[in-house]
Amino acid sequence: ELLSHLGDMHHADIAEILDQLTLDEATYVIKLLDSEKTAEILMEIDQDDRERVLENLTPKEIADEIEEMDTDDATDIISNLSVELKDEVFKNLKDREHAQHIVELMRYDEDSAGGLMAKELIKVNENWSVTGCMEEMRAQAENVTRVHAIYVVDNKGKLKGRLSLKDLITAPSNANIADVYIENVDYVDVHTSAEEVARVMQKYDLEAIPVVDEIGRLVGRITVDDIIDFIRDEADKDYQMAAGISEDVDADDSIWELTRARLPWLVLALFGGFIAVTVAGQFESAMVNYGFLFFFMPLIAAMAGNVGVQSSAIIVQSIAKGTLTGSVWKRLLKEVGLNVLNGIILSIILFLGAHFILGRDYIVAFTVSTALISVIIIASLIGTFVPIMLNRYKIDPALATGPFITTSNDIFGLLIFFTIAKYMLGF
Amino acid sequence: ELLSHLGDMHHADIAEILDQLTLDEATYVIKLLDSEKTAEILMEIDQDDRERVLENLTPKEIADEIEEMDTDDATDIISNLSVELKDEVFKNLKDREHAQHIVELMRYDEDSAGGLMAKELIKVNENWSVTGCMEEMRAQAENVTRVHAIYVVDNKGKLKGRLSLKDLITAPSNANIADVYIENVDYVDVHTSAEEVARVMQKYDLEAIPVVDEIGRLVGRITVDDIIDFIRDEADKDYQMAAGISEDVDADDSIWELTRARLPWLVLALFGGFIAVTVAGQFESAMVNYGFLFFFMPLIAAMAGNVGVQSSAIIVQSIAKGTLTGSVWKRLLKEVGLNVLNGIILSIILFLGAHFILGRDYIVAFTVSTALISVIIIASLIGTFVPIMLNRYKIDPALATGPFITTSNDIFGLLIFFTIAKYMLGF
Ligand SMILES: [Mg+2]
Ligand SMILES: [Mg+2]
Ligand SMILES: [Mg+2]
Ligand SMILES: [Mg+2]
Ligand SMILES: [Mg+2]
Ligand SMILES: [Mg+2]
Ligand SMILES: [Mg+2]
Ligand SMILES: [Mg+2]
Ligand SMILES: [Mg+2]
Ligand SMILES: [Mg+2]
Ligand SMILES: [Mg+2]
Ligand SMILES: [Mg+2]
Ligand SMILES: [Mg+2]
Repeated sequence: ELLSHLGDMHHADIAEILDQLTLDEATYVIKLLDSEKTAEILMEIDQDDRERVLENLTPKEIADEIEEMDTDDATDIISNLSVELKDEVFKNLKDREHAQHIVELMRYDEDSAGGLMAKELIKVNENWSVTGCMEEMRAQAENVTRVHAIYVVDNKGKLKGRLSLKDLITAPSNANIADVYIENVDYVDVHTSAEEVARVMQKYDLEAIPVVDEIGRLVGRITVDDIIDFIRDEADKDYQMAAGISEDVDADDSIWELTRARLPWLVLALFGGFIAVTVAGQFESAMVNYGFLFFFMPLIAAMAGNVGVQSSAIIVQSIAKGTLTGSVWKRLLKEVGLNVLNGIILSIILFLGAHFILGRDYIVAFTVSTALISVIIIASLIGTFVPIMLNRYKIDPALATGPFITTSNDIFGLLIFFTIAKYMLGF
Repeated sequence: ELLSHLGDMHHADIAEILDQLTLDEATYVIKLLDSEKTAEILMEIDQDDRERVLENLTPKEIADEIEEMDTDDATDIISNLSVELKDEVFKNLKDREHAQHIVELMRYDEDSAGGLMAKELIKVNENWSVTGCMEEMRAQAENVTRVHAIYVVDNKGKLKGRLSLKDLITAPSNANIADVYIENVDYVDVHTSAEEVARVMQKYDLEAIPVVDEIGRLVGRITVDDIIDFIRDEADKDYQMAAGISEDVDADDSIWELTRARLPWLVLALFGGFIAVTVAGQFESAMVNYGFLFFFMPLIAAMAGNVGVQSSAIIVQSIAKGTLTGSVWKRLLKEVGLNVLNGIILSIILFLGAHFILGRDYIVAFTVSTALISVIIIASLIGTFVPIMLNRYKIDPALATGPFITTSNDIFGLLIFFTIAKYMLGF
């Protein structure tokens, strides 16, 4: 009964249902359904759920699933298995060509074009005729879920150009491939980074892109659905990183997973807070005559944090988009200019508030305002400089956003605030 | 010389060059090149740059560009023109069908399927034969840059199903469309939200999706490249919102644009800071015997802010992905559980640090630690609850991340901290 009901559903819909079930129930459904369908379902469910389901399958059952998957997905699954299980699964693969393709794809870095591509594609030889090509394509198309483009290669397998199905349909049937194909084709190299592939495909609005090896031979194809998944994952990771969450988690994950992703950043912030306590303690002498200065600490820390996060977010985003051009100094200068402007406005508001609302002396209100504008400028410089430097040393600049920047800006902000107050008020 | 060089380049590459040029130079290039090319270039450059370039073109020149654009892009451009200019441009449009399509598309909300779709698509009648269909398609394909699928409609124009080019190629030529088309087709309604369209296309790995009107007639098509742009824009906006940047800006925008996007959030944070100053002032009596309590303010505020941002980020992301299921109470309970765990660990660290490193009394160290765990739990509840409530009242939950949550948590955090200290230490 359940079986026939699920049989009619799209694999992505079944995957959504499985995400709600217990592990045992999910495993039961996977074992029950035909692997033609479950292979696709497996690819859609949460990675951690998938790994747990796979642990409950025999090597033979895993091999059956792999057999039905496209080579890119099959490679992702096999790569995550333990060494012994991997061997067992390979022994159970009947389709030797499929197995060879997987072995080839396993060589590439996960975050490179080689790691994203699949071997399923349609290629024709430039020397064929359009009619012969149609024949050949009908045969090849059996293995390819969706035909985006037909790639044209020479006798050595080198990528020469492409042909859309539209061109093929509209071409006179007595033409040769060499006469009708388009030489101008976007492609990437197996070693191109995944980010760059996403950038190219987005820029040129591509639905698929061919991948060539070191000597220009066509070795695979990347499709846009996998690139969308990549873009979403990267955006999610950056967003979480900025919020102080270091692993890819979602609200439905276990408390243990969520703690592991969140606690380290809180410990970092706590140690930063500890340093801030010590910094404030150094200016204890102010407490006698200027005790109310301490009331301003959260305000100063908050402004330093907010300004730092704004600056770093803009830079991190520009780096990710690849639009960060020009020299570091010009960038810092612009950020200073912008924050002098913001700082003046905010300091005036603070001056008026401290004097007229809180009823503090002119000199005190002026001191606090001066400290604020200094803190804003320094905070923005830190927010701009740190991600640029991290990126230069090949560390993910997104690390610099969130808790890292707010914590360090709290400390620097308070240090600047009290130092300025000490000199202006004298304590 | 320049002309012939640019003529060979891809429009997206030319757009990247134009982004580096001054407005006058960019306008010059646009006027110089053929509108067949510039129409596509215009769609690729930054929206604000595009608007400035368009201001320098005559209605006739704008109409020439519009004429070459797909209907979705043409509609976006025309919608942003002033009322008078719009009329002028429409008068200059020679292709009346194109103009009618634009007028139709202008009716739809920008963030709906109707606002994303284009009129360019290929449709065939279910009653045609495969051979006749090939003929008809050759004609229709002239206007469509890329053929993703052929949509099948009945005599009333209702969407019945689809046909891939692959199916058409592999079908026997004496078949009828009715025999070969696939009835199962994903589609959306003109009023479906853009988020939902993105979700559906990503879930089912679609390269294009047909759009139907209220009575099921096929009225347009949305392609995946526009959905990728939408996904990226939304991710960028959410990221910036979480960093306290309220308009879509990038590092290359003018200081004025950047200020306008950033200053309002800083003013909000400043007012929040002002309230925090007042809160701290209420506990001035503590200064006599427990002055060092004030040193802990930045630590408490930082922890409250970080925890709040973590909680809200997870919720905002789950809402955006549509994976937030179950009751609010269960969600809050889980968040409390998680933060009790984190809070205990962090409070122990703080207790040990305050007693052994800073050399404070057991009772004082215990007071500060107790305050910390309370602050963490309340902060996480605020971070979880606020976005859920905003979303329930149809306000973008992303508003609740960043400065909003850190500012309110600073205030509540300090209030809780001093209140607990007051009762435990008595001042
Ligand atoms: Mg892979
Ligand atoms: Mg694009
Ligand atoms: Mg585009
Ligand atoms: Mg794939
Ligand atoms: Mg990244
Ligand atoms: Mg999970
Ligand atoms: Mg803070
Ligand atoms: Mg639109
Ligand atoms: Mg997908
Ligand atoms: Mg997929
Ligand atoms: Mg479009
Ligand atoms: Mg949003
Ligand atoms: Mg701009």
